[in-house]
Amino acid sequence: MNDLMEKTLTSQEIYNGRVVHLFRDTVALPNGKEGVREVIRHPGAVCVIPVTEAGDVVMVRQFRYPFSTTLLEIPAGKMEQGEDPLDCAMRELSEETGAQASKWTELGVVYPSVAYLDEKIYIYLAHGLTFGKTHTDEDEFLHVEKYPLGTVLDMVMEGDIPDGKTQIAILKACRLLGL
Amino acid sequence: MNDLMEKTLTSQEIYNGRVVHLFRDTVALPNGKEGVREVIRHPGAVCVIPVTEAGDVVMVRQFRYPFSTTLLEIPAGKMEQGEDPLDCAMRELSEETGAQASKWTELGVVYPSVAYLDEKIYIYLAHGLTFGKTHTDEDEFLHVEKYPLGTVLDMVMEGDIPDGKTQIAILKACRLLGL
Repeated sequence: MNDLMEKTLTSQEIYNGRVVHLFRDTVALPNGKEGVREVIRHPGAVCVIPVTEAGDVVMVRQFRYPFSTTLLEIPAGKMEQGEDPLDCAMRELSEETGAQASKWTELGVVYPSVAYLDEKIYIYLAHGLTFGKTHTDEDEFLHVEKYPLGTVLDMVMEGDIPDGKTQIAILKACRLLGL
Repeated sequence: MNDLMEKTLTSQEIYNGRVVHLFRDTVALPNGKEGVREVIRHPGAVCVIPVTEAGDVVMVRQFRYPFSTTLLEIPAGKMEQGEDPLDCAMRELSEETGAQASKWTELGVVYPSVAYLDEKIYIYLAHGLTFGKTHTDEDEFLHVEKYPLGTVLDMVMEGDIPDGKTQIAILKACRLLGL
């Protein structure tokens, strides 16, 4: 694949914010010419599809500022510095829904927008749920909603759940569970 | 959902580049406090899962700068100002693989990273393929590779295709096609 490689020539930090860390790099393209690559460096994230014994998915509805609307998603969140993805998944599930899970299954990783974003989202399926108290972040507001797995699969196929990580988690979980 | 709403107080443009248009906004949170939202405004994109009569998926391998490696994806690209998603899908399929398709099926839309990115990716399934010449952008270098649909489904389930839009397109297409 050497004929596809790009080599970094310069890297300029544009902005280092709360979530977005933006760089503007110049690169040597495979044809020897110079190109520009904008890239957002992100700490990585996790998401969890929690399925109850009755077959319901525990989901969260949140206002998503870029779209000026609320979206229905599975529980998710950013990893803290040095945090293990599974530890992060357990923490986010507990914070957002109050649930603890006794059985965790890896559903792989997603790169959400590969052209300019280095974010990786680790996906987990969680079973054996028990519920305690939620404890969301100070600037985080959400509703917990439960739907049968078959219903959320229909919603994904009909376009009613636009969030990417949620679509993948539901489609993969349904295939694994024979639905 | 009024108890989840956030209201924009100020919006500051941080950077307006080739792909990334970054803003730092302040918002009124549901509890009345002030919060910060970083948001990347993006023109939107399309992707196409092209399936040949023999049941092969026509894919592209590209160097993806944020990950410093090549990734296997379905054909995709950014929408031009005012461009219709389907027109863009036809253009990108032709540019990247040389293919024209006689049958197009909508597979919905994906929001790849909803917390800070307003990108929407429209997904299409393309059948009835005929092949001509590719004509990629000046700074775009890629290999075209074909794999049976069942093989790429296995690759998605086993974690060998991390690109999000490709995972969703394959999982949805396989479900639609009864695979």
